[in-house]
Amino acid sequence: MIRVAVNGYNVIGRRVADAVTAQKDMELVGVAKTRPDYKAELALKKGYRVFAADEKGRKSFQAAGVACSGLSREMSSLADIVVDATPEEVGVANKEMYSDLGKSAIFQGGEEHDVAGLSFVAQCNYEKARGRKFVRVVSCNTTALCRVLNALDQAFEVERARVVIARRGADPDEYKKGPIDSVVLDPSTIPSHHGPDVNTVLPNFPVITMAMKIPTTHMHLHSLIVTVKDKGISDSRVLENLWRTPRLMFVDSGKQGFKSTANIVDYAREIGRPRSDIYESVIWEDSVKAIDNEIYLFMAVHQEAIVIPENIDAIRAMVGKEDKEQSMQMTDQSLGIRSSPK
Amino acid sequence: MIRVAVNGYNVIGRRVADAVTAQKDMELVGVAKTRPDYKAELALKKGYRVFAADEKGRKSFQAAGVACSGLSREMSSLADIVVDATPEEVGVANKEMYSDLGKSAIFQGGEEHDVAGLSFVAQCNYEKARGRKFVRVVSCNTTALCRVLNALDQAFEVERARVVIARRGADPDEYKKGPIDSVVLDPSTIPSHHGPDVNTVLPNFPVITMAMKIPTTHMHLHSLIVTVKDKGISDSRVLENLWRTPRLMFVDSGKQGFKSTANIVDYAREIGRPRSDIYESVIWEDSVKAIDNEIYLFMAVHQEAIVIPENIDAIRAMVGKEDKEQSMQMTDQSLGIRSSPK
Repeated sequence: MIRVAVNGYNVIGRRVADAVTAQKDMELVGVAKTRPDYKAELALKKGYRVFAADEKGRKSFQAAGVACSGLSREMSSLADIVVDATPEEVGVANKEMYSDLGKSAIFQGGEEHDVAGLSFVAQCNYEKARGRKFVRVVSCNTTALCRVLNALDQAFEVERARVVIARRGADPDEYKKGPIDSVVLDPSTIPSHHGPDVNTVLPNFPVITMAMKIPTTHMHLHSLIVTVKDKGISDSRVLENLWRTPRLMFVDSGKQGFKSTANIVDYAREIGRPRSDIYESVIWEDSVKAIDNEIYLFMAVHQEAIVIPENIDAIRAMVGKEDKEQSMQMTDQSLGIRSSPK
Repeated sequence: MIRVAVNGYNVIGRRVADAVTAQKDMELVGVAKTRPDYKAELALKKGYRVFAADEKGRKSFQAAGVACSGLSREMSSLADIVVDATPEEVGVANKEMYSDLGKSAIFQGGEEHDVAGLSFVAQCNYEKARGRKFVRVVSCNTTALCRVLNALDQAFEVERARVVIARRGADPDEYKKGPIDSVVLDPSTIPSHHGPDVNTVLPNFPVITMAMKIPTTHMHLHSLIVTVKDKGISDSRVLENLWRTPRLMFVDSGKQGFKSTANIVDYAREIGRPRSDIYESVIWEDSVKAIDNEIYLFMAVHQEAIVIPENIDAIRAMVGKEDKEQSMQMTDQSLGIRSSPK
């Protein structure tokens, strides 16, 4: 059994903790949190051991009468590997502690590539994480793009990809963030950081991204425009290639009635996904269009969930024995992700 | 004086009526409306003669005690030209009436190209409207795109333009329409209707559009990716060309602090534009980027206002004497649009 600790228990940490618990070859040592809020109470109800981020945090747990098993350092020392899901820039500050303890650690996409030296998307570079002490799982948009762009590149050789990303303004529980009723350029300059971030996984991949924030909370929406060197592409050839690609979900606007991101969230609730989570990059089949040697498509990304399978696979790649196919299959089965091909 | 009647008094009609009133060479005969609502009352307060769309409408005006000068047919007979700003598909149904009366008429972009046989954007094809009985002013997105794409084509020869359009879900007063908190593909298939609509003004122009609706009410946001044949482009060459193009407004995210569409609306209110109207295609200067022979930029479009100058110019092109430059200058001066170059 791989002993996993989860440091940080918010959007990603909570999901990783549940996903670790769902793996037959992993054991959750505990989760660490800064505050004894309702999220801590729910973790205790699930039977998770809850640790405080620091001494000050421990006192606030005591004051609130919420059980605390110690500090995150103690939790980390009990684990083979720590998934660091703390906020941006806190992860890099924790790195020294993991090093001191001789523990492996996985950081999230909010940290810079240099925190680990390897940025990870399972289907792109699983084997490169083998035996590494530190790995960074890239952010939601980068994960989604790497899955799809890598597949298109393998099949048709990408000459240039351009992606316009309409980002959800805030997660559903972030009640202070905007925008309301406006589009925020994110940033106004081109490219956005997403293209260069794809290059941390797929070096030198020719991709240019433009991003904006809009008043939604549930998913990002990507518009892809990809020129390929293969002059013989067609809608069906592109689709067949994507169908064979892991961790994509396909929806259709006509027959199935997926008119919007709202329908995808509704679907995830209806099939009983925990927290309505969608781990797949969601592609509208009826949007896939080949015009000359250019591929067009729409893709939706559930920002809170898409990196969860990657965190699980990164654990196995770093401290487990399974190869890429074995690990991805185990992860997918535990989370209810269909195995490809479609 | 050109006698102008405005049939339909909602988003476009109200603005055209005010713009006609602001022209030295035009006279507003009256406006026609279906219902005696607050918009009718405001028109009367401005001193406009208000006509009913039909007999049923006249009775509802009488019942409400709102002054009514007759039917839209009578209004049309008093005019040299009618600007038809009725809802989609009502315009085409009115065409027979205008023909019967021997009146010229301008239709809006909600109607098909065939309603008039000429789709109009002043700076692209003013002279083609000369002496025509019927002209169609294209919709907001098409107008904005034609201005910019035509300018880029003249300067650098466009090989292929791709545009991702994030459409405002509803106008500010459309309280029944959505979406709330989701992105609606509009449609999921590619291209959206906007590309073909550009081709009604610029035949065979190589443009492919993808569109979505988002939860905003104030502006559309276009992401442009334009490949040109000119291999010697640069950020500054592209900008200099755009600066020379009429009816564009330039904003900057850094120095000026235009971070979002909300800032543009706020700016329009602050400079005292009626109804906060923005008649220009608004381009973020700091977004303009040349990568190899590809141009990238963000553009915002005020859906309620951008076609107003085009309606005024179409009137002069059809029944006036001024040439393109004269008419555009008169229109721009009356509406407070800066004269190019920047």
